[in-house]
Amino acid sequence: MDDIKILKGNIIYTKTKDEFEICEHGYLVCKDGKVEGIYQTLPFRLGGEPIEDHGDCLIIPGMTDLHIHAPQYTFRGTGMDLELLEWLETNTFPEEAKYKDVLYANEAYAKFAKNLKHSSTTRACVFGTIHRRSTLVLMDHLERSGLVTMVGKVNMDRNSPDELREGTQESAEETVEWMKDVQHKKYKNTLPILTPRFIPSCTDELLDMLKMVQMRYQIPVQSHLSENLSEIEWVKELCPYAEFYGDAYDHFGLFGADAPTVMAHCVYSTEEEIQRMKENGVYVVHCPESNENLSSGIAPVKRYLEEGLSVGLGSDVAGGSTENLFRAMAHAIQMSKMRWRLVDQKYPALKSEEAFYMATKGGGSFFGKVGSFEEGYEFDAVVLDDSRLESSRQMSVKDRLERMIYLADEREVKAKYVRGNKII
Amino acid sequence: MDDIKILKGNIIYTKTKDEFEICEHGYLVCKDGKVEGIYQTLPFRLGGEPIEDHGDCLIIPGMTDLHIHAPQYTFRGTGMDLELLEWLETNTFPEEAKYKDVLYANEAYAKFAKNLKHSSTTRACVFGTIHRRSTLVLMDHLERSGLVTMVGKVNMDRNSPDELREGTQESAEETVEWMKDVQHKKYKNTLPILTPRFIPSCTDELLDMLKMVQMRYQIPVQSHLSENLSEIEWVKELCPYAEFYGDAYDHFGLFGADAPTVMAHCVYSTEEEIQRMKENGVYVVHCPESNENLSSGIAPVKRYLEEGLSVGLGSDVAGGSTENLFRAMAHAIQMSKMRWRLVDQKYPALKSEEAFYMATKGGGSFFGKVGSFEEGYEFDAVVLDDSRLESSRQMSVKDRLERMIYLADEREVKAKYVRGNKII
Repeated sequence: MDDIKILKGNIIYTKTKDEFEICEHGYLVCKDGKVEGIYQTLPFRLGGEPIEDHGDCLIIPGMTDLHIHAPQYTFRGTGMDLELLEWLETNTFPEEAKYKDVLYANEAYAKFAKNLKHSSTTRACVFGTIHRRSTLVLMDHLERSGLVTMVGKVNMDRNSPDELREGTQESAEETVEWMKDVQHKKYKNTLPILTPRFIPSCTDELLDMLKMVQMRYQIPVQSHLSENLSEIEWVKELCPYAEFYGDAYDHFGLFGADAPTVMAHCVYSTEEEIQRMKENGVYVVHCPESNENLSSGIAPVKRYLEEGLSVGLGSDVAGGSTENLFRAMAHAIQMSKMRWRLVDQKYPALKSEEAFYMATKGGGSFFGKVGSFEEGYEFDAVVLDDSRLESSRQMSVKDRLERMIYLADEREVKAKYVRGNKII
Repeated sequence: MDDIKILKGNIIYTKTKDEFEICEHGYLVCKDGKVEGIYQTLPFRLGGEPIEDHGDCLIIPGMTDLHIHAPQYTFRGTGMDLELLEWLETNTFPEEAKYKDVLYANEAYAKFAKNLKHSSTTRACVFGTIHRRSTLVLMDHLERSGLVTMVGKVNMDRNSPDELREGTQESAEETVEWMKDVQHKKYKNTLPILTPRFIPSCTDELLDMLKMVQMRYQIPVQSHLSENLSEIEWVKELCPYAEFYGDAYDHFGLFGADAPTVMAHCVYSTEEEIQRMKENGVYVVHCPESNENLSSGIAPVKRYLEEGLSVGLGSDVAGGSTENLFRAMAHAIQMSKMRWRLVDQKYPALKSEEAFYMATKGGGSFFGKVGSFEEGYEFDAVVLDDSRLESSRQMSVKDRLERMIYLADEREVKAKYVRGNKII
């Protein structure tokens, strides 16, 4: 017997970055956890199946947050008066050090996972801390949430305070231990991802060892890239052999050549770096709100999209203030307008379609066939009830979706499916 | 018998733009609608009065939205893909034309007033449409809300579609009729404000007549100024006699010389314009989200503050997507960072204190002694319950206030007082 689920509502999604696909008052059919089809009229063969009727609600694909720091969720929305390197030292590292305490981690990660579950996000690439046991606690909470995530125990063996720095050997060994723990846990929805924090936090020796771990366990990689001007200068000093920031990762085989790799920010990527990302299939994570809050700048994301790079969106909590990816979409559009106005008129502003595409299929593709309602895609769906935003005006489904970008939060999330399972 | 009210909670406000005044678990005392004082320990003489204990909540002054378009609330969050002049023609003017229908206006304005009432705003300068009767309906709704507002019947006699254009004489006469209506209505909290839409919408003849109305009724003025580059070019063509955009208003005595005047945007004000605003005491309304959404640019608001201009914040719905002034504060800070990074490093980013000051005392001063808890200020207070944003971390009152800037919405507004009256 097939497992069939049928949702009815105003279905809207993107196959490409350039346009919305819309089926008003249509039927979205899930079969064995995958999208079977979208129908304006339900086919006869499905006539006997129960229908979950969401009336005039919008139904969109689940979103993917390609870059979020779980331990930083505790101080979201505060400490926004510094640039990246000072912000890390002053706000972030002291907070992350607290996660040595598994009880603190357990309490904090429970809240993080609960709120992420109730957001429009169905998939996420998540940073933990250097602490192996606390990272497992994070994975336990995320597994229970029903979300599908990739989670990283962070590696750091230099340029961080004593209480948040591992020995080089220790960092590699703990990562191997963590991989064994993860295998033992047999998570269904929670995958490990190798997470060297960023070049300034990892010695060459450590990156060499992490490459061995990556090959041994065949896991993907996440890190940070070309976010801030001082950071980039620092990487030049630390890795004189590197042609550009990303080349420092590539030097150790940690820049997409052998494994799916996702790099957050890319605000200041050079021509060579962009070229290498293209060749190696590196994913760019655009985190506009974080890039505003930390005074980093505006990434040329319209260019990345036009050149065919894989681009997703990240909330980058707590550089970003919220896990709400609608806000990330709005910031992406708004920042692309400011970039057009103030920096470079060669690339026009992002359209709603492009922002939505990045938040769904763009980032989702890092998880496989995810983020669209095309046939065979994993069934991640979010039902949005926008009746809170009452208006006297008749609005098209497309207009209502655009309005969600600017105004929606978890209150609009009425139901949520991940891989065909209803989690809200 | 004095009318005494006592609120207990974590009181935070700004006397100056540079620092927060904080009284944790303190008493805020209201006497006859005005702030009587703030006390860490309640004075003996007040011992017999009932206390409204808000526990660990924050208590802040009510905010002033110095620029919001009530009729545009219906399409907030949509139609963001155009610059100002095209956006007006395509989205705004057709919607505003609908307000000829008083029934449409009544339904739409009821929703607007309801949501503004439940926001953190206690005062606002509001644009209606050209329609006299509908503008009175808007004023009726705002009066019932308990908010204190200045509301304008808009004047437009050129460069707009037939259905949203008045004859020159007609526009002036309807304004006089509207003033008479308003006098007849005897509103307590709802004041008229003269509202020539902007120079491109008003002929010289009309502005001459409106000056007469302004003098006859002694009313303040609100309009738009130097928002968008094409708009500024157009004003140059339309008013060849004007030295700069603001000088066109000043030519007709409508730029602060005789009456309190508030000008929205000032993104591209020249040295001469800034100087004239200073001389004439013109208020600047910073509307950062609108300036992002309409690709206008970033106003040098840090400079305005440092030079001692009067500056408040505006949501500018529907160029801005929301009436939530916390969002305007966050956008102001974020845009000041982008301006520092991309345009001009002479002025550093805005601090939380400055954003909060603009939203409270900065804009509030347009209404008199409003927006602070200093003795004698009108008692506008908002109680914020931030317990929704649970965190494992201990947070100071200042950190919690900063977090509100990024994350608060109407859910946090637990109670609200305007002129000493509890309206929520």
